[in-house]
Amino acid sequence: MCRWLSYIGEPVYLEKLVFEPRHSLVEQSLRAEQAKTPTNGDGFGLGWYDDRKTPGLYREILPAWNDPNLRSLAHHIRSGMFFAHVRASTGTETSRTNCHPFAHDNFLFMHNGQIGNYSLVRRVLEAMVDDEFYAARQGTTDSELIFCLMLTFGLRTDPHRAIRKTIEVVEREMRNRGITVPFRFTACLANGESVCAIRHASDDKSPSLYWRKRDNHVIVVSEPLDAESDSWIAVAPNHTLHVTRDLQICEEPTMVATGCKGAA
Amino acid sequence: MCRWLSYIGEPVYLEKLVFEPRHSLVEQSLRAEQAKTPTNGDGFGLGWYDDRKTPGLYREILPAWNDPNLRSLAHHIRSGMFFAHVRASTGTETSRTNCHPFAHDNFLFMHNGQIGNYSLVRRVLEAMVDDEFYAARQGTTDSELIFCLMLTFGLRTDPHRAIRKTIEVVEREMRNRGITVPFRFTACLANGESVCAIRHASDDKSPSLYWRKRDNHVIVVSEPLDAESDSWIAVAPNHTLHVTRDLQICEEPTMVATGCKGAA
Amino acid sequence: MCRWLSYIGEPVYLEKLVFEPRHSLVEQSLRAEQAKTPTNGDGFGLGWYDDRKTPGLYREILPAWNDPNLRSLAHHIRSGMFFAHVRASTGTETSRTNCHPFAHDNFLFMHNGQIGNYSLVRRVLEAMVDDEFYAARQGTTDSELIFCLMLTFGLRTDPHRAIRKTIEVVEREMRNRGITVPFRFTACLANGESVCAIRHASDDKSPSLYWRKRDNHVIVVSEPLDAESDSWIAVAPNHTLHVTRDLQICEEPTMVATGCKGAA
Amino acid sequence: MCRWLSYIGEPVYLEKLVFEPRHSLVEQSLRAEQAKTPTNGDGFGLGWYDDRKTPGLYREILPAWNDPNLRSLAHHIRSGMFFAHVRASTGTETSRTNCHPFAHDNFLFMHNGQIGNYSLVRRVLEAMVDDEFYAARQGTTDSELIFCLMLTFGLRTDPHRAIRKTIEVVEREMRNRGITVPFRFTACLANGESVCAIRHASDDKSPSLYWRKRDNHVIVVSEPLDAESDSWIAVAPNHTLHVTRDLQICEEPTMVATGCKGAA
Repeated sequence: MCRWLSYIGEPVYLEKLVFEPRHSLVEQSLRAEQAKTPTNGDGFGLGWYDDRKTPGLYREILPAWNDPNLRSLAHHIRSGMFFAHVRASTGTETSRTNCHPFAHDNFLFMHNGQIGNYSLVRRVLEAMVDDEFYAARQGTTDSELIFCLMLTFGLRTDPHRAIRKTIEVVEREMRNRGITVPFRFTACLANGESVCAIRHASDDKSPSLYWRKRDNHVIVVSEPLDAESDSWIAVAPNHTLHVTRDLQICEEPTMVATGCKGAA
Repeated sequence: MCRWLSYIGEPVYLEKLVFEPRHSLVEQSLRAEQAKTPTNGDGFGLGWYDDRKTPGLYREILPAWNDPNLRSLAHHIRSGMFFAHVRASTGTETSRTNCHPFAHDNFLFMHNGQIGNYSLVRRVLEAMVDDEFYAARQGTTDSELIFCLMLTFGLRTDPHRAIRKTIEVVEREMRNRGITVPFRFTACLANGESVCAIRHASDDKSPSLYWRKRDNHVIVVSEPLDAESDSWIAVAPNHTLHVTRDLQICEEPTMVATGCKGAA
Repeated sequence: MCRWLSYIGEPVYLEKLVFEPRHSLVEQSLRAEQAKTPTNGDGFGLGWYDDRKTPGLYREILPAWNDPNLRSLAHHIRSGMFFAHVRASTGTETSRTNCHPFAHDNFLFMHNGQIGNYSLVRRVLEAMVDDEFYAARQGTTDSELIFCLMLTFGLRTDPHRAIRKTIEVVEREMRNRGITVPFRFTACLANGESVCAIRHASDDKSPSLYWRKRDNHVIVVSEPLDAESDSWIAVAPNHTLHVTRDLQICEEPTMVATGCKGAA
Repeated sequence: MCRWLSYIGEPVYLEKLVFEPRHSLVEQSLRAEQAKTPTNGDGFGLGWYDDRKTPGLYREILPAWNDPNLRSLAHHIRSGMFFAHVRASTGTETSRTNCHPFAHDNFLFMHNGQIGNYSLVRRVLEAMVDDEFYAARQGTTDSELIFCLMLTFGLRTDPHRAIRKTIEVVEREMRNRGITVPFRFTACLANGESVCAIRHASDDKSPSLYWRKRDNHVIVVSEPLDAESDSWIAVAPNHTLHVTRDLQICEEPTMVATGCKGAA
């Protein structure tokens, strides 16, 4: 299990969220409160959008609390849409290519959760990945595989269909192999224009997911960054939250989501 | 603060203590129970004696729970006298040269504790270090500096005098600068023939220190490796424990210690 | 391309070959002379047999010339059969799981060479790997994939058939996709009892491979460790060298090798 | 010995110099042409000025050619004044705190060269460092020590006097100890407003140093980034080059430099 945050709004220095809050993401790398494991020390990553066509990426295998580069980068990099993630491995190696976020073209993806008994379905799921994304895969995690499946199922053209189909396929293949360990999937996707955060589980224990809107930004997080607990709103289980560049927000049941066309 | 263990006895594979016990040192790197901080993820180290003149050393900046090399080395390296240490930095960088144990000639040293307000006395203490050990110093921690002072004050010829003098000098220089933050010093020294473990503090809160003797070995630890709590004996505050290759044990007040000549 | 060495004989400290020769493997990590690239700084690894059932493994992403742990381990670890490897990546990430040697049960494998246009055949070759070895695969290199294929094709029961079949399959799949970049494959396998070194290429430029026998040991290397050049014997292209624990040696054409039954 | 570059001018993405030129700095990390050693693989660093009060810093112990984070950061970070450095250690550990550039307040410093027989003068030189900079010192290199001396001797108020005094003091202390190995010192300093590059040696073999001015920028380098060799101008031995934000340039003998007041 992992902890992550996503920011959309007026450009800010990344440290504003990564270091400064009382219960910042770096603090959560040492002492998460709503996670299965309090320590998220198996690497971390940043992904951010700026003037370039593809997002920036900084991933490291040290714990986030222990990396002086992270402190300097978070002080100097400013962005209006960024991801940050601290990792607690569920079995795969601590290498940079296994750290989140993952990037492909203009997409960023990060994840908290896991495919139950991953080794039993890894092979069949990998076989479904399109050649283009199979060749681009760099690591070995279930998270990156899920991202490859979403890309395969049309993330570029119909993201909601791609997300639904990925969830359906993963759960079907798990069922086909008699896996009873649940699929837990609380994830975040961005394309540079909008962010979409999914809270899903095949049982009734989906990992926590919150958001907060202020005048000029929205933050989506695994767990609140501060104690103002009534300012944070929980995303409902099996729902997806959409946030656009102009801070339009809507929440829909994941399996019937349309991207809130006409909503907000 | 940190966690450490020391073993003296029949040669065993290091994993026997580093990985296998319910509350092994690697488990303590994630969830220490008697330490100021539960997470000891700022690097780790092994030091061991074998047929070579100087001890082996393996130090790494990753958390101990996250290093596949450690697992293989602990499975393959066997020793009758070894140290293992997991680090929680009190401010200095996470680099290999700042990880314990430290080695010089046939000596190994590791430490849990800190010099209060280190930056105020670092300079004056470094000025006391003999040229030989000054040149050999590789890192920047207070722990390595304490080791250099012990070497300077005669560790090779009269270890107990060297330990006492080091404690006296550190506490005097702290007093001279009006430092009221305490000096906490629970440390372990070996020369290949015997091990000596010191539990000291300038106030009444010396870090925990335990030992256990079985038929063919003695283990000295920051905190017990298992729940058989009545089998672990606490070293008294401000006392030093001596353990020889043939498992003779004695405990003396540190400031009058003689190495238990004629004891046991 | 990479550089490697293998030792079989009286147990010696690893440093004897890894550090001490004039043109030691660590020297070759900086200045290889017969390799496509002089610098082999993309990680390294050690694998060694001792009293344990499976070989020890130490792999690191730093250049070999730059790792103080390697110096200490090579000074303290003694073995009568070991591998050492310095890596020059041909495209995949510098992570520990991509460093050689690779280990499975009692087998060690390391490699210098590459599958031409690997990304075009990776997928079809991965699909041939048995579930057991597919699940055990940790990295993403062509080298590890070749090892998985050999295991799939019966390395445990008939190693020569497994090697032949792997070469045939790789070359067939490359041909099927019209790949004209050659398959270069100079590799070393051990099972704890004997070592087998293969010099193969699909064109006439197989990477260099040498061996030398002395009274109590045999060394197999990518390039000589010293300037006594007439003491090193080149393995013929497309031949396999066998060396047993009792230093029996034979060389056969790889595609008809039988393991030198009755030979020597 | 090391390789470095400095850029002053219109803001550009760092990759423009770090990766793109035929003989870019990353290329020089593998194959330097005018250095004592062709391989500069013992870590690297970036320092850059932007809207923040202090410069950004990214330092890593991997070789520069081997770090995917460097590629992404150099693609996304844009600056009008930045340093980049690839390191070949002259003895001290490969840790991040030993990598260049070094930063203090608004200053950046990087260096190619070494104090001959450093261990003989390290102690006396360290004793001269002001408490403020002594406490801020993080690593153990001679380069960082030289930076601390310049800060001690008034870098903030009279940089040329500070540079001169540092050179004088280092050479005097070397002479006092009978050191005949030369002092080689080709270094670069910036304060956010201007850059000053020093080419100095106590013998007649000062490391190479070049610059080139184009319409909207100046580049200062250890060795040319491309083969247009007549476009690169060598700084004379024992001279200092000054470059201001508005691209005023002047060169003076280091030991009588005034910062080109009224020059250009």
